[in-house]
Amino acid sequence: MASAAWRVTGIHHVAFAHADPGVPEQLAATLGLPCVDTEVAPGFVERMLAAGDDRLQLLEATGDGVVQRFVERRGSGLHHIAFRVDNLDAALSELHDRGTPLVDERARAGGGGTRIAFLHPSACAGLLVELVDDAPGDAPR
Amino acid sequence: MASAAWRVTGIHHVAFAHADPGVPEQLAATLGLPCVDTEVAPGFVERMLAAGDDRLQLLEATGDGVVQRFVERRGSGLHHIAFRVDNLDAALSELHDRGTPLVDERARAGGGGTRIAFLHPSACAGLLVELVDDAPGDAPR
Repeated sequence: MASAAWRVTGIHHVAFAHADPGVPEQLAATLGLPCVDTEVAPGFVERMLAAGDDRLQLLEATGDGVVQRFVERRGSGLHHIAFRVDNLDAALSELHDRGTPLVDERARAGGGGTRIAFLHPSACAGLLVELVDDAPGDAPR
Repeated sequence: MASAAWRVTGIHHVAFAHADPGVPEQLAATLGLPCVDTEVAPGFVERMLAAGDDRLQLLEATGDGVVQRFVERRGSGLHHIAFRVDNLDAALSELHDRGTPLVDERARAGGGGTRIAFLHPSACAGLLVELVDDAPGDAPR
């Protein structure tokens, strides 16, 4: 179990991977979710649709990369889940010490000024999990 | 877009389908998420892991049914996303009037005293979406 040094405080976003440029408009229209952030990365475009304070992240494959490979292998679908944590550095330190397989041993910059890290899918039974610190100004550095 | 009659207010839960009885303990241990509810249904067991006020729902296939067919076809993986809405009846009425394909034309009982309805995946670009009213006492009936 997580120690007293950190805890998951909620779901920050859920990511849906696709390759169809019409998807963001369809989802935004059906569910009434406004797009509040768009970031272009190598091989994909990331859009954040607001669901209250939570986010549905749309990952559109635009070239070779992890998103395109996911869509080619599995079709469009849910890609990962991102949990808010109250102390990302403590979480990564403890997970590392416990031998938990991590993609990111240290936090790196995420979208919208967040700090993030991915666990390796084998850490969570095949589920790709991202940890997010969305109040990095408050966190120990 | 959604009208003024209803809106999505957040992510209620994200569901992960699997067939391995060891998954709940692994996920709970790695992420420090306590299991706060277990319900047995025909063909699957549903467990709710608490992530603050949000939930990671684990759907364990135990026999023939939608969860087992999902796992057989795609392997373990994220199954659907459930959004909180502030007026589920208004949402279903408006989506119906707009011709949005629905699995549930009317709200039905969900776990933990909620009222729920699923949209057809074709409504959201292949993403299976559940709408949840988790304060049914406050909602218009």
